[in-house]
Amino acid sequence: MKAALETHLEDLRRRAAAAPRIEDCFAAEPERLTRMTLEAGGLRADFSKQKLDLATWQALGRLADDAGLAAARTAMFSGEVINRTEQRPVLHVALRKPELAPNPAEVTDVLAQVERLVEAVHTGLRRGAHEAAFTDVVNIGIGGSHLGPQLACDALRDHATGLHAHFLANVDANEFKRVVEPLNPATTLFVIASKSFTTVETRLNATSARVWLTAKLGSDDAVARHFLAVTSKPERAIDFGLDASCIFPMWDWVGGRYSMWSAIGLPIALAGGMDVFRRLLDGAASMDAHFEAAETGVNLPVMLAMLGIWNTNFLGAESYAMVPYDDRLAYLPDYLQQLEMESNGKRVGLDNALLDHHSAPVTWGGLGTNAQHAFFQLLHQGTRLIPVDFVLALDHGDAYREHQDMLVANCLAQAAALMRGRRFESSASGDTGVDLARHRESPGDRPSTLLMMDKLTPETLGALIALYEHKTFVQSVVWNINAFDQWGVELGKVLAEDILQ
Amino acid sequence: MKAALETHLEDLRRRAAAAPRIEDCFAAEPERLTRMTLEAGGLRADFSKQKLDLATWQALGRLADDAGLAAARTAMFSGEVINRTEQRPVLHVALRKPELAPNPAEVTDVLAQVERLVEAVHTGLRRGAHEAAFTDVVNIGIGGSHLGPQLACDALRDHATGLHAHFLANVDANEFKRVVEPLNPATTLFVIASKSFTTVETRLNATSARVWLTAKLGSDDAVARHFLAVTSKPERAIDFGLDASCIFPMWDWVGGRYSMWSAIGLPIALAGGMDVFRRLLDGAASMDAHFEAAETGVNLPVMLAMLGIWNTNFLGAESYAMVPYDDRLAYLPDYLQQLEMESNGKRVGLDNALLDHHSAPVTWGGLGTNAQHAFFQLLHQGTRLIPVDFVLALDHGDAYREHQDMLVANCLAQAAALMRGRRFESSASGDTGVDLARHRESPGDRPSTLLMMDKLTPETLGALIALYEHKTFVQSVVWNINAFDQWGVELGKVLAEDILQ
Repeated sequence: MKAALETHLEDLRRRAAAAPRIEDCFAAEPERLTRMTLEAGGLRADFSKQKLDLATWQALGRLADDAGLAAARTAMFSGEVINRTEQRPVLHVALRKPELAPNPAEVTDVLAQVERLVEAVHTGLRRGAHEAAFTDVVNIGIGGSHLGPQLACDALRDHATGLHAHFLANVDANEFKRVVEPLNPATTLFVIASKSFTTVETRLNATSARVWLTAKLGSDDAVARHFLAVTSKPERAIDFGLDASCIFPMWDWVGGRYSMWSAIGLPIALAGGMDVFRRLLDGAASMDAHFEAAETGVNLPVMLAMLGIWNTNFLGAESYAMVPYDDRLAYLPDYLQQLEMESNGKRVGLDNALLDHHSAPVTWGGLGTNAQHAFFQLLHQGTRLIPVDFVLALDHGDAYREHQDMLVANCLAQAAALMRGRRFESSASGDTGVDLARHRESPGDRPSTLLMMDKLTPETLGALIALYEHKTFVQSVVWNINAFDQWGVELGKVLAEDILQ
Repeated sequence: MKAALETHLEDLRRRAAAAPRIEDCFAAEPERLTRMTLEAGGLRADFSKQKLDLATWQALGRLADDAGLAAARTAMFSGEVINRTEQRPVLHVALRKPELAPNPAEVTDVLAQVERLVEAVHTGLRRGAHEAAFTDVVNIGIGGSHLGPQLACDALRDHATGLHAHFLANVDANEFKRVVEPLNPATTLFVIASKSFTTVETRLNATSARVWLTAKLGSDDAVARHFLAVTSKPERAIDFGLDASCIFPMWDWVGGRYSMWSAIGLPIALAGGMDVFRRLLDGAASMDAHFEAAETGVNLPVMLAMLGIWNTNFLGAESYAMVPYDDRLAYLPDYLQQLEMESNGKRVGLDNALLDHHSAPVTWGGLGTNAQHAFFQLLHQGTRLIPVDFVLALDHGDAYREHQDMLVANCLAQAAALMRGRRFESSASGDTGVDLARHRESPGDRPSTLLMMDKLTPETLGALIALYEHKTFVQSVVWNINAFDQWGVELGKVLAEDILQ
């Protein structure tokens, strides 16, 4: 972090060394729950079970302010070249608010192009080579061209249009066999999603899909009918056999892991409908507006970020667990793993010097209640500090009410159990030498955040993802790193090419 | 760890403080690759890219020996009450070698019972209430009654018998809707897997499945035809409506997360065939035999465990990443997460005292090559030490040869890249103030293990899982904890029940 912040850091280190128990904070601070609950975009975050008092909460806000957050945020929203190592602006927010884009018409034109395609497929105007209507769409893409659309398609499954989305990401043939081979080529649409159109995994999968398709449909014309592409290199897609009208653009000012809001979101619009895709964008836009306007102390993404920094840089957490209590958010941990770890897994600052502090922790997790029967033992009784972000939709509709009640009860219970812990009176150990009380005891005082929404909708999903995007950005500002490059992945590509040769 | 080990620990701390770069070890130790490659059960582990020299490798072996590994192992295999807080022996190895069981005939009888059931279903002798042959089986179970069968069914998909396995674990109704509702009740078999038959998630899912089934099939008799159970409380299953002949036993000497080798593995036998299930047991047995007999320094599970201890307790790693380069092993990280974190996520020793050292790290991970496009940035250029276990099958058969070559090349390249890193000459920063060389640089010297097998078969899968079971056990011996209880999960259950009321 910047040298000018040293006074803040010393103050926070002292506070961390003397951090009170979470339960004691509740006793001492009658307004704690109100003051530490923030709302935006249909989401409500209860931070009251984090391990800090209200004075420290305010100190974290001052750290954010003095780290230059306001200026950095303005720089991002106004299209300055904040991705300095790649000399690019960072404007995924413009996909949610086109007037922020270098050329706003480009953004709205692509949305209209997506809408026309979706309409044509859904109405049957656009059909396969054998004139059958499409029933399935396979997205061929990896990393940023995979995780966002997969998360959204699965999360918004209740909005299904009847067109089923599938994802082919890995170069592993076992995935090709699992995903592609069971499909009917006559009714399957492929989307090749690659900014450069040269990503090796995507390129090989696209080639194998073309072979599979033409072998079954027996016509080269089938490629133009069955393949779409999202890329910034349309000429390469045309060489591959695509029709120019089936190619959707990408821009340099949208990074791969921030691109689900662009035409990379095509599978979302195809599987869920254009209205769902627009509502997703709207939800993200509402979080953007909050992030731009809200004061630091009530700014949801800012305080989420600062609590992550508190846990990581001051309390010593090396990871945090993302635990949605919702089957529809099964891919959220994977999505956030890329978003946070690829963005902020850096060791060199914007000043070109090695950091003298930690950057991103490991993001990992899994679904509640399953996780309670898997790794929660370590969260409760292990030797490590692992903060948890719980995500919960309160209302799942009227069906299966008992299931829903039990799900909600378990989520709330886990947050309480992590905080409270449990003590036992020492038990007579008798013949066995085992003092069971010691083994049953949980120390408690383990922090968590509870992120709630009334319902999981396209809007709340959009807001949720935008929340973590901005959290990631805020942390990068405080850590003084560039969240938007990924130089660390280059070496492996070079060595793999050497080994292949 | 035990006080008697302090001399070892001091020695290892000194070695850790002076640990050489991995690449320098290769230069200094011509026999390194040979000496640090161990084989067992069709698996070959290359540990040469771990950050330690051969002298330290030997010191770790001495630590294992002096921690009492041999006696502890003998105690486990001979059925002593090593799960002392629950007063039970720990004999999952007896499921692979029945003569180790308290009553060997019980084990072989249950295997025969499983075989009869599988035969009856596959031949169509056993049919649904409407006399249709079964096409699908839904396992209703959570945690240890879910993760193992799910991993094995998915990993051994190439052996599919035509009966499709599904898994209903979470209490979330969204999972019920996704898993159960699309099925045909007339051809669906359910297995209720719960040792106590009172696990709340499983109980509610089983009840909803019964409602769904009887509503569609319109007959109470359907329950007895369509439901099986694996439980140690058969009377509760009978109360639920099951036929006594459809209930498979479990024993107190098999822990939930070690139980896929028991009748809990029924879905594996149903989906893959009885021969596949027996081959899985055989593979595990061959790892057991190696673990029992091999000298410490060439004992694969022992050295895997000790390298984990080296990374965790001496080099300061807080987590490790499990990265299989195989779509069929997609569930392996989840499985190991439970196995390791629930077993060894403990803070109290067998002496009833708080540990003065760390126990289990976080186990997390994902599939290569996808992970390269997601979280590998942090592994290469983040601020944390995160050791990686790569898992790779070298031969996937003749189809899609290019895919397989690229997969193998990428796995090998990542291990090399983590070790080597890359330096750049400082670049003129020009107008931008960016010294790109600093941002592109990777430090290297990041440790990994490469675990290879010729092919993924029932035998090598069995050996792989048994390998990590024994790794977990060995670590618990050195950490002086009980790997076989899970008291930390109790409090959450109590609080959830309170909230529900």
